[in-house]
Amino acid sequence: MGTVVALSGQVGGAKLAEGLRRLRGKDLAVIVNTGDDHEVFGLAFSPDIDTMLYTLGGIASPAAGWEPTGETYVLHDMLHRLGSEHRVRVGDRSFALPLLRTEALRQECPLSQVTLGFCKKLGIDARVLPMSNDPVRTVVLTADGEVSYHEYLTVLECEPVVKGFLYAGADVARIPDEVLEAMYAPDLEAIVLCPANPYHTIQPILAVQGMRELLRERGVPVIAVSPIVGDRALKGAAGKMMQELGHEVSARRVALEYYRLIDAFVIDSTDEAAAEGIRSCGIEVAVAPTIMRTADDGIALAQAVLDLAQQLRARKETEHSA
Amino acid sequence: MGTVVALSGQVGGAKLAEGLRRLRGKDLAVIVNTGDDHEVFGLAFSPDIDTMLYTLGGIASPAAGWEPTGETYVLHDMLHRLGSEHRVRVGDRSFALPLLRTEALRQECPLSQVTLGFCKKLGIDARVLPMSNDPVRTVVLTADGEVSYHEYLTVLECEPVVKGFLYAGADVARIPDEVLEAMYAPDLEAIVLCPANPYHTIQPILAVQGMRELLRERGVPVIAVSPIVGDRALKGAAGKMMQELGHEVSARRVALEYYRLIDAFVIDSTDEAAAEGIRSCGIEVAVAPTIMRTADDGIALAQAVLDLAQQLRARKETEHSA
Repeated sequence: MGTVVALSGQVGGAKLAEGLRRLRGKDLAVIVNTGDDHEVFGLAFSPDIDTMLYTLGGIASPAAGWEPTGETYVLHDMLHRLGSEHRVRVGDRSFALPLLRTEALRQECPLSQVTLGFCKKLGIDARVLPMSNDPVRTVVLTADGEVSYHEYLTVLECEPVVKGFLYAGADVARIPDEVLEAMYAPDLEAIVLCPANPYHTIQPILAVQGMRELLRERGVPVIAVSPIVGDRALKGAAGKMMQELGHEVSARRVALEYYRLIDAFVIDSTDEAAAEGIRSCGIEVAVAPTIMRTADDGIALAQAVLDLAQQLRARKETEHSA
Repeated sequence: MGTVVALSGQVGGAKLAEGLRRLRGKDLAVIVNTGDDHEVFGLAFSPDIDTMLYTLGGIASPAAGWEPTGETYVLHDMLHRLGSEHRVRVGDRSFALPLLRTEALRQECPLSQVTLGFCKKLGIDARVLPMSNDPVRTVVLTADGEVSYHEYLTVLECEPVVKGFLYAGADVARIPDEVLEAMYAPDLEAIVLCPANPYHTIQPILAVQGMRELLRERGVPVIAVSPIVGDRALKGAAGKMMQELGHEVSARRVALEYYRLIDAFVIDSTDEAAAEGIRSCGIEVAVAPTIMRTADDGIALAQAVLDLAQQLRARKETEHSA
């Protein structure tokens, strides 16, 4: 068995990453979106990295996957009593990673090293890595003007109509050495785009300069898993965004967002009828249960993705030898 | 009734300040030591200011007066799980003031205004003010070298032998406008040095450039309350420090630390025998119960101090008219 690289973010993406980790352990590297990173109280919040660390560290709340289990909010309440106007209800335990990250970044430690340090402390055998150590900020172009994705989510509560997205800084952001190392591993088997919002979770990673080329040039299967089941997003505002961008809300549409990047697309069993339409765009399709309610669901989906990768590799070898 | 200014810090100092607040409300201004201020995780911790705010805001823990009541430590535990080596066990609620202070200071709001803002939010009618908006850091000269007071307390646990103190930055630190305003109030009645460690709580305040002159020039009674009862400090390391500095551990010694600054000194009833020795140094002495176990104890001591101030003012008037 070789190594696997996953591109991920959000709760669903973290669940599949955890499934992959259960199968591959230290042979998994997860490249996480940092386009949602933001500062509150001068602290460096990295929501997608933290969700990933809680999930892979086995301490994520089963109910709200983005925070540690048993979370309390006494600090938040005290902050509001003292006049804080920050809307996001950050739990007590959830301040720990941002506090330590901020301190380490001030001491000039790169985000990738800080994050690997957290993996070690949380007993995570896989490598969680930021898509870049340089700042990239996802900007939402709305009918009412431009806002950061963080503000769009927390202050505007995803209300304004979405016209498009920008990934500010992505064109000059560099891929971290640790990501290059994972991508150039001699035994790399598969690159997995986890199920997550294409616009503000996966695309920001792909927008980092050279990332698309890097994903293609290794020649290993690139497989995405649909975050859309039926005609709606499993979580979050992906459905609303697709609609407002003038797209149909469907697994096929997500596949098209990754056109010429992915070799195959995994759709949910309920969407089997859509398979043909996706295949007609030159993208291989596999059908599997993509809703991850339990850890076993995540492992099963991860296994389905890796099996598909193996099939694609085998087919390619046959073609080569033919 | 006129206005009162108190110089204060630590838990005992906050208790007397609360007694004064109960008697004078908005006519009290408390100038608080900031020589123990320090950064942890890049956050601006002001231990003496926060103790004062919790106490005057009525939310201080009765057991540990330096933190809010019902404090929990889940963030601290998480920080340590993630590798933090900071020793001080900061409670969850206790992060709120430093977080908001740090944010406000970064936005160029002066510490005095930040602190008055906290007073408002906590419903404190009195004015809590830092001794300066400029940084002053108390340095402990020990047998093993120089350390910040914060490090001496938390890392070295007050172990090394004390040779002396420095108040770095005090000679160029400016007195805040709000402190000047309180000191120049036309109806100022008394200046009270609350019971607290003379070396690292009261002296740093007095070391701010021009502070001693300011206290004397108004001509109102300056009265200190002894933090030493019998031959030991009520709290903290004052006794140990006095011994290592080559002094006797006594109320008299504390009175001498304020020589030529104070008009009168309040000692505990158990130290009545020491009164004559202090009077022989030209300092008036009053005897009162100085141990504040309850809020009423604090009010009674505050009343005793204000009564003494009134006597001193009356005597002065008599002398003038004589």
